[in-house]
Amino acid sequence: MSRPRPLVPRGDPADTVRVVGEFGVIARVLARSGTAAAAEVGPGDDAAVVRTPDRRVVATTDVLVEGRHFRRDWSSAEDVGHKAAAANLADVAAMGARTTALVVGLACPPDTPTSWLEGVATGLADECAPQGAAVVGGDTVAAAPGSTAVVLSVTALGDLGGRAPVLRSGARPGDVVALAGRLGWSAAGLAVLRRGFSSPLAVVSAHRRPTPPYAAGQVAADAGATAMCDVSDGLLADAGHVAEASGVVLDLDRAALVRACLEPVGPLQQVGSALGVDPMAWVLSGGEDHALLATFPRKARLPEGWTPVGLVRPGKRGAGVRVDGVEAADALAAVGAERAGHVHFG
Amino acid sequence: MSRPRPLVPRGDPADTVRVVGEFGVIARVLARSGTAAAAEVGPGDDAAVVRTPDRRVVATTDVLVEGRHFRRDWSSAEDVGHKAAAANLADVAAMGARTTALVVGLACPPDTPTSWLEGVATGLADECAPQGAAVVGGDTVAAAPGSTAVVLSVTALGDLGGRAPVLRSGARPGDVVALAGRLGWSAAGLAVLRRGFSSPLAVVSAHRRPTPPYAAGQVAADAGATAMCDVSDGLLADAGHVAEASGVVLDLDRAALVRACLEPVGPLQQVGSALGVDPMAWVLSGGEDHALLATFPRKARLPEGWTPVGLVRPGKRGAGVRVDGVEAADALAAVGAERAGHVHFG
Repeated sequence: MSRPRPLVPRGDPADTVRVVGEFGVIARVLARSGTAAAAEVGPGDDAAVVRTPDRRVVATTDVLVEGRHFRRDWSSAEDVGHKAAAANLADVAAMGARTTALVVGLACPPDTPTSWLEGVATGLADECAPQGAAVVGGDTVAAAPGSTAVVLSVTALGDLGGRAPVLRSGARPGDVVALAGRLGWSAAGLAVLRRGFSSPLAVVSAHRRPTPPYAAGQVAADAGATAMCDVSDGLLADAGHVAEASGVVLDLDRAALVRACLEPVGPLQQVGSALGVDPMAWVLSGGEDHALLATFPRKARLPEGWTPVGLVRPGKRGAGVRVDGVEAADALAAVGAERAGHVHFG
Repeated sequence: MSRPRPLVPRGDPADTVRVVGEFGVIARVLARSGTAAAAEVGPGDDAAVVRTPDRRVVATTDVLVEGRHFRRDWSSAEDVGHKAAAANLADVAAMGARTTALVVGLACPPDTPTSWLEGVATGLADECAPQGAAVVGGDTVAAAPGSTAVVLSVTALGDLGGRAPVLRSGARPGDVVALAGRLGWSAAGLAVLRRGFSSPLAVVSAHRRPTPPYAAGQVAADAGATAMCDVSDGLLADAGHVAEASGVVLDLDRAALVRACLEPVGPLQQVGSALGVDPMAWVLSGGEDHALLATFPRKARLPEGWTPVGLVRPGKRGAGVRVDGVEAADALAAVGAERAGHVHFG
């Protein structure tokens, strides 16, 4: 039933989703999508079929809303694709798994340029390709009448490769708390963009395209990590999720966090000085860098890429997070951070 | 890091997503979500883990936008949950598989009543439960600033149980075209609601809560179906997808369609008379009942629930769909239908 579509040159202002139509958009986007090594049936049927030799599949989903999670004037279409994929790939990594495939839902205003969607597809594909993953299916619909915002919903599937999934609930008193990846860079980048600046590029790029340490999740699982999560809501917030799920206290070591996140002196201090912000506030509460936080048995040798940042203590007076023994809320207040992490619906 | 939330009685006008907060919403929604038999790790971690004994997983996603796919004044929250699940479960069924788990993304305005989201969760759970499936994970975020519309994104995972997936591309000249399930009821229900009526209830209910013939997908696969798809865009549109993927012509038999869809005389004729619409228009172009359309080898015995409605012919002059040999577009025009199916971005 495909009917001839009006011929509109790519890049022409008239080259929008409305003009090209749903199936035209899908064809253009799929041309950018690459191939998932694990796909037995890829895009174009009622559903995809993905091989799961492990007899289990890891599944996670994240929704990105324009104006909440990205702005088209701050991030390119490719950036948005990278960021949407990264949020999901990091969740899969935090289980000790590798992403094999994505399915993508998209609600967009009819006047969205087709080239913008092609850019998102390119970003998704480029972020997935090093894992051997790709988009294997999706759904493209019109945004709500009158809405000018794009909503992008990404679901990632992953393969544990025989590993036991590393849950948030396995931290035990005596374990070492360790970190892989960066903290605070995305938050510093966002602070810069909010003031109308676009440099230093290092932190702005970190906000636009996070670089989670995907491989660190699998090596942590292989090294016997007892609990793991990705830091998407902020270090203290996500450490709190591990503490609560495990019924323990995660006592973080401020000096170790400084060593891990603020040495050598770099752009976080530079931006902090310029904006009058203690960079430790971004380290403790900034989300979206998608670092990985894990706990390891005390005698385990931390694998490459992991740095110790604290200890797990018994949760005698309730589970929670402390920094040098100080309650998380007080630790945040001390550095001028308003809250423990991203809170939606604020 | 969970802080005390204001205590608001359930059902109080102040009991909104903004007041209850992201984690409060998730807790309330999960309480309604049931348990997936295949879940090794359910909601609450970075990702879910779902068992896939078949060593493959079927994956599909659908996005439902308020004002496009549902209206809160026409459908209850439970209806929306049922409908969102059904669209995905039908896609899984159309591969010859059974749904094992859902992950759900939700973008909603902060003033959305928490009870509405609980209703959606109940609808999702009730539609999934007969399959042994349930929601195993999700993401809840705020809608775009200023947006009053809910966007619901559902991804379904499914198990083929050792079957080969039935694709759209397998139809061969000489095959029988067959149908399972209803056509046109949802479209008739929508037509009624658009005129401001809410009866006859049979078609209005069909619009609010489609009842796809899930089991018919698996029995078709077992019976040797050569191609299959679910009818979500309209019979002629979706038959067109099979024709194009297979490089054949699907020649539908009008009399057989009348027997399958309009006999005995029922609510479609009743609504058609009242609104001055040829009910065959809804049968040929109405989507969202999620009937299943399949092709079978001519000598195959059609399994229970399947009715023959046409024949596959060679696509000598290009693939396509005909009704009694008449081109689809002309067949639609003859019954006053404007177009071959739902077209987004219209």
